[in-house]
Amino acid sequence: GREAILKVHASKVKLSNDINWNVVARRTPGFVGADLANVVNEAALLAARYNKPSVGMAEVEKAIDRVMAGPERKSRILSKQETKVVAYHESGHALVAKMTPGTDPVHKISIISRGQALGYTLQLPTEDRYLTSKTELLNRIKVLLGGRMAEQVVFGEITTGATDDLTKATDLVTRMVMEFGMSEILGPVAYKKPDGEVFLGRDLSHGRNYSDRTAESIDGEVRKIIQDSQAQVKTLLEKNRSKLDALAAILLEKETLNADEVNAALGLPPQEPAPTPA
Amino acid sequence: GREAILKVHASKVKLSNDINWNVVARRTPGFVGADLANVVNEAALLAARYNKPSVGMAEVEKAIDRVMAGPERKSRILSKQETKVVAYHESGHALVAKMTPGTDPVHKISIISRGQALGYTLQLPTEDRYLTSKTELLNRIKVLLGGRMAEQVVFGEITTGATDDLTKATDLVTRMVMEFGMSEILGPVAYKKPDGEVFLGRDLSHGRNYSDRTAESIDGEVRKIIQDSQAQVKTLLEKNRSKLDALAAILLEKETLNADEVNAALGLPPQEPAPTPA
Amino acid sequence: GREAILKVHASKVKLSNDINWNVVARRTPGFVGADLANVVNEAALLAARYNKPSVGMAEVEKAIDRVMAGPERKSRILSKQETKVVAYHESGHALVAKMTPGTDPVHKISIISRGQALGYTLQLPTEDRYLTSKTELLNRIKVLLGGRMAEQVVFGEITTGATDDLTKATDLVTRMVMEFGMSEILGPVAYKKPDGEVFLGRDLSHGRNYSDRTAESIDGEVRKIIQDSQAQVKTLLEKNRSKLDALAAILLEKETLNADEVNAALGLPPQEPAPTPA
Amino acid sequence: GREAILKVHASKVKLSNDINWNVVARRTPGFVGADLANVVNEAALLAARYNKPSVGMAEVEKAIDRVMAGPERKSRILSKQETKVVAYHESGHALVAKMTPGTDPVHKISIISRGQALGYTLQLPTEDRYLTSKTELLNRIKVLLGGRMAEQVVFGEITTGATDDLTKATDLVTRMVMEFGMSEILGPVAYKKPDGEVFLGRDLSHGRNYSDRTAESIDGEVRKIIQDSQAQVKTLLEKNRSKLDALAAILLEKETLNADEVNAALGLPPQEPAPTPA
Amino acid sequence: GREAILKVHASKVKLSNDINWNVVARRTPGFVGADLANVVNEAALLAARYNKPSVGMAEVEKAIDRVMAGPERKSRILSKQETKVVAYHESGHALVAKMTPGTDPVHKISIISRGQALGYTLQLPTEDRYLTSKTELLNRIKVLLGGRMAEQVVFGEITTGATDDLTKATDLVTRMVMEFGMSEILGPVAYKKPDGEVFLGRDLSHGRNYSDRTAESIDGEVRKIIQDSQAQVKTLLEKNRSKLDALAAILLEKETLNADEVNAALGLPPQEPAPTPA
Amino acid sequence: GREAILKVHASKVKLSNDINWNVVARRTPGFVGADLANVVNEAALLAARYNKPSVGMAEVEKAIDRVMAGPERKSRILSKQETKVVAYHESGHALVAKMTPGTDPVHKISIISRGQALGYTLQLPTEDRYLTSKTELLNRIKVLLGGRMAEQVVFGEITTGATDDLTKATDLVTRMVMEFGMSEILGPVAYKKPDGEVFLGRDLSHGRNYSDRTAESIDGEVRKIIQDSQAQVKTLLEKNRSKLDALAAILLEKETLNADEVNAALGLPPQEPAPTPA
Repeated sequence: GREAILKVHASKVKLSNDINWNVVARRTPGFVGADLANVVNEAALLAARYNKPSVGMAEVEKAIDRVMAGPERKSRILSKQETKVVAYHESGHALVAKMTPGTDPVHKISIISRGQALGYTLQLPTEDRYLTSKTELLNRIKVLLGGRMAEQVVFGEITTGATDDLTKATDLVTRMVMEFGMSEILGPVAYKKPDGEVFLGRDLSHGRNYSDRTAESIDGEVRKIIQDSQAQVKTLLEKNRSKLDALAAILLEKETLNADEVNAALGLPPQEPAPTPA
Repeated sequence: GREAILKVHASKVKLSNDINWNVVARRTPGFVGADLANVVNEAALLAARYNKPSVGMAEVEKAIDRVMAGPERKSRILSKQETKVVAYHESGHALVAKMTPGTDPVHKISIISRGQALGYTLQLPTEDRYLTSKTELLNRIKVLLGGRMAEQVVFGEITTGATDDLTKATDLVTRMVMEFGMSEILGPVAYKKPDGEVFLGRDLSHGRNYSDRTAESIDGEVRKIIQDSQAQVKTLLEKNRSKLDALAAILLEKETLNADEVNAALGLPPQEPAPTPA
Repeated sequence: GREAILKVHASKVKLSNDINWNVVARRTPGFVGADLANVVNEAALLAARYNKPSVGMAEVEKAIDRVMAGPERKSRILSKQETKVVAYHESGHALVAKMTPGTDPVHKISIISRGQALGYTLQLPTEDRYLTSKTELLNRIKVLLGGRMAEQVVFGEITTGATDDLTKATDLVTRMVMEFGMSEILGPVAYKKPDGEVFLGRDLSHGRNYSDRTAESIDGEVRKIIQDSQAQVKTLLEKNRSKLDALAAILLEKETLNADEVNAALGLPPQEPAPTPA
Repeated sequence: GREAILKVHASKVKLSNDINWNVVARRTPGFVGADLANVVNEAALLAARYNKPSVGMAEVEKAIDRVMAGPERKSRILSKQETKVVAYHESGHALVAKMTPGTDPVHKISIISRGQALGYTLQLPTEDRYLTSKTELLNRIKVLLGGRMAEQVVFGEITTGATDDLTKATDLVTRMVMEFGMSEILGPVAYKKPDGEVFLGRDLSHGRNYSDRTAESIDGEVRKIIQDSQAQVKTLLEKNRSKLDALAAILLEKETLNADEVNAALGLPPQEPAPTPA
Repeated sequence: GREAILKVHASKVKLSNDINWNVVARRTPGFVGADLANVVNEAALLAARYNKPSVGMAEVEKAIDRVMAGPERKSRILSKQETKVVAYHESGHALVAKMTPGTDPVHKISIISRGQALGYTLQLPTEDRYLTSKTELLNRIKVLLGGRMAEQVVFGEITTGATDDLTKATDLVTRMVMEFGMSEILGPVAYKKPDGEVFLGRDLSHGRNYSDRTAESIDGEVRKIIQDSQAQVKTLLEKNRSKLDALAAILLEKETLNADEVNAALGLPPQEPAPTPA
Repeated sequence: GREAILKVHASKVKLSNDINWNVVARRTPGFVGADLANVVNEAALLAARYNKPSVGMAEVEKAIDRVMAGPERKSRILSKQETKVVAYHESGHALVAKMTPGTDPVHKISIISRGQALGYTLQLPTEDRYLTSKTELLNRIKVLLGGRMAEQVVFGEITTGATDDLTKATDLVTRMVMEFGMSEILGPVAYKKPDGEVFLGRDLSHGRNYSDRTAESIDGEVRKIIQDSQAQVKTLLEKNRSKLDALAAILLEKETLNADEVNAALGLPPQEPAPTPA
């Protein structure tokens, strides 16, 4: 679907031969038509700015980053200590992703500010996903907690930089418990509807309608799942401290690492290319 | 009623001789006039698309599916593992329905995406229903939990694919307890009005007005009923694992099965045709 | 008052001699002017449809039923089992009313669908009422629970058909406890105003303002009163099972029974006519 | 103030000599200018209807009743039993008022329906009041509960007729506890502002803001005060049962009693006339 | 500031020589420009009404009272007993103020109704205040409770006349506990923002967001502080009962007392005049 | 960024040679474009008012104070005691900041009223900050509590002057617990979103949705953190009482102290100038 849409939009710009729309489609999961149009436009603008005769894969890659995470913020100058914290934070995300089987491949990590973020770790699924299992959800939560735990392991304390990760992890765990029926204690009951409304058949008025004791169980279950995940992540990072240091050091030096560079830093073989679909 | 409405709408299109409006009427319980008009229109469009001289029963059947569950989503390509999960999920619904006396007959199961769903199991009542007994409600809940339990039994864990089933099962159980007076513990008291408003004679302002202890009892009763149902469903599927495997295997192969194909897969005789009313 | 209003409206239509407006007035308690005008109009329409030269008592009776409970739903065809459940349900209401001293006389019972209802039992007071005692309220609650308990006694389980009865019974019991000061435990305190607003002098903002413990007491008291009433109704119906069977059998056969037919089915003498006021 | 206003309005109508505006002023406490104008107009209309040459004290008295309690409802015909209940109810109010020192004098009692009420007992203060003591508030509550307790003592149960009394008594007790600081347990704390808003300095958002335990104390205190008052009223009426019977009997006969007739029924001397102010 | 504003407004009216704007400024703390303009206008109107050639200090004083507390209500005639209660109530406020070091000087007390109040006690600070200590807040609360406790000590019970005092005292104590961090138990935490909104960093939605146990602690602390203050005030008034009687007696006789008259009644030397600022 | 913006705005006014825009930029962290334009305008107005030929560093400094804290309130005259309290309060803030490693340098303290504040202590970061660690947050809280604790240590009680400090400290601690995941007890869970909305994946309706027990834990944790910080601050100020006295004495005398004057008062060497960036 996305590949076809991309080709329609791209028909209006001059393209270089190195562009593989199938790869682009795979790197833009969740993108709707407007996003893809945006990517093509941004790439054309970048090619024009650098006086290139045609739009190449490099411009398309940069355009995807920009559409995905916002413009680079070169004017935002972090202190040395802050930059170091960010480098370990992103390395934490990436290392947990690499060490946890079944997570999406790490495509890029960066300590260049973009949009609201001071750095970012980009994982790309190898295919579109329609179902997610409990194990996969727990793995995503671990990757989210990897940044924060890297800070804890290396610096002995945590900063305000992990706030967005906490929000996302809490959201996922809460949906596991309240929406997907994945908690033994709370049982196979929908406590909220998929769209987020509080449910249980009693939500026509404001506020939740389950009892405070049920709310207590939900709180306890959410806290337990996230704390257990965090403990596992901490252990994993402590055991792999030298890899974490190695990755952070190279990231500090190069500012942005692609999949192969991440693998090299961790002493892993380069990622095998995804098979080209027919 | 529906048969008459269908005939009015159908008077505007050319029909083949194989159409039995009485059968169509029975397959569209709950359809209002606009839905039925829609079915006739869709069928006419399909006949035109395939250059058929008249609208036949095949077109009408497809049109009903489309109006009931939304258009097919051929562009949505699931991974092999996802497709397998969906096949077992739908087979779970169908098998529980077949093994539970008093549930509506299984008319069709499919792993072709339609609308929001990745697959669907279609049960059709043999007649319109105006009253539902407690036993019948519990049976519906079991069928709803069959998909999720098939995933659990076969793959050892659950995916996000059962979310809509959970919402529907929770809604039914909650109405049994709060609206239909079917719980011994909560008693013959209406805790909400049929239209869903919280009730108990105290609901003119926002929020629930029964005590938190009553809310606790309701939560406990809802959880117990749904957990007991789930345990029975799990046992039933474990005992009939070979039937489940057989049904899922054929479904994976054929993608859509009608009532007779389901029966064949389960080693059951073909469904007897409904008697034609005078 | 109603008799005078009826005569004003009726002055515009040609009447047969059999019409007794005093009887009509007694059969329309709670009707306001517009309802009564409606009755006269419906009766005139019915007379016109059947080509009668004038409006007779038969047309007026049918018109009252139509205004009171909505139009007959002849197209709604229930299954044999559903019809049997409805017949026992209505017979349950009627039998409890007949066996409980001090309730309003049973005027008609029917298993013909009207408006939202699958059947109905019509009690008519012998005079307008302005005060209701605690005993009379408890009797009304028992009659309301009679339908549901007849289902339980005869079929061993309950259907969704008693939902509206539960809502009405819960509303009455709640008003006894919260509005009329008729519970020893809650005491002579108004917990809500007659018009339904939560009260206790603290209700200017949203939601209830009494404590959760008071809400618990209210819940417990409401549940107890309605459960006690239900137990008495169940015993009464079990003791009079043969009468219940007899009434249901005749109702299934005739579909609608008037007061004398109900009495005959129960082996009671015909109801004495109400004395004609001067 | 009211006397002057009355004279201004009365200057437009022809008056008989028997009118004492000072007495009228005393009988209309709480009346604002528009109410007083209303009284004069109603009195003039009554005089015109009965073809009187001038407006007399009789017309003014009837006009005050009409403005105070709404028009008589002669078309509302109660059953004998209902009328008897109303007579005892009003006699209960009146007897408690007569037997409790410090309450306002009983001016009139009636079992003729007016506005929403089936009967009424009218007490008139001898002067306008600006301060009310705790004892006076408790006395008012006892008079309010007198009607309901008379029903209990005489008929052994209570009707829906005491609902408005309960609302008023609950409102007074709640204000004693939450607004006037008259409960030892809740202490000299304002839990709501005089105008009824929930207070305690925390009420800027919706709902109450004191703890549920405080709400429990308030509920308990309100219930205790009103139950203690009711117990005293019941004892008083039981001890004076013969007086209650006597008053109710004469009220049933005459339908409306003035102060002297009430005194006569109770064997008390006629009320001494209020001294005429200079 | 206020003195300058007063002079601007006063430049438009003819003044007598006895006016000391500095004194006027000190007697109008909290007045904004519009209030001061109002004072000058009212004084000019009073001078015109009494045919005075110029506005004198007497007119300005009366104008301040009128702007501060509303117009005198001469038509509101209290009973003897009510007047006596008001006299003791105001004497209670004044006596507590005089006996508590560090409170603002009593400027005037009166039992003439003004605006909504039946009487008033006027304290004037000797200078504008920007900071208030915990001790000063507790003293203000004691003065507020003085009126109500004088009623209790003298008449053995309390009237509805102390309602406004309770509201103000509750408001002050609640702010001490929730806003100023002056409770050991609740600690140095802001439970609401200065402008009254519930706070604790969680108040963006409706209602309070601290736990019910914290609400309980707040309720308990508020109640304890106000009950302790009341007990101290009661003891003080009982010990000084003869002074209270003397002050009330003179107030009943003269209706309004200035600072020197209050001192004389209490056997204290006349208040030393405030030093005139340069 | 800010330096460039400043230069753009400053291009419209005549500048003296002593202006160092880099220093100005460092002293205006958090200022947006409009604020910086404001600073230049205010400085130009000040230069015009004092008839200076060009805008100098002195005018720019004053302009920054005005934009940051509002205009000076010279007409607000505090009593001697109030002034002394303010001097100790600000000295408390400053001394805690000086004695706590890792806090931002104290740039200025003043007891001249500005905007809503009676005095202020100005700390300026040496660089823009994007991440804040738990330790740094706790240090900020201690500085906020320093004013209030200085009042307690010196005067034995607290005034209403610390209200704004409490609000800010409570807000920071609450965010540590609910947003930044910095409490062991509450765990790495986001209880509200960064923008302040209550979260936990359940906040689509009004009010909080976690259980009351969780709210209790949050309350307890917030109170504990802030009470522990306060105890440490109190001990620090008691141990350094002579420094506190010295600083307050000089502040009372000079009304405003710059960084060097603060250091001198505390016997510390003058602050080393920040290195000028290239």
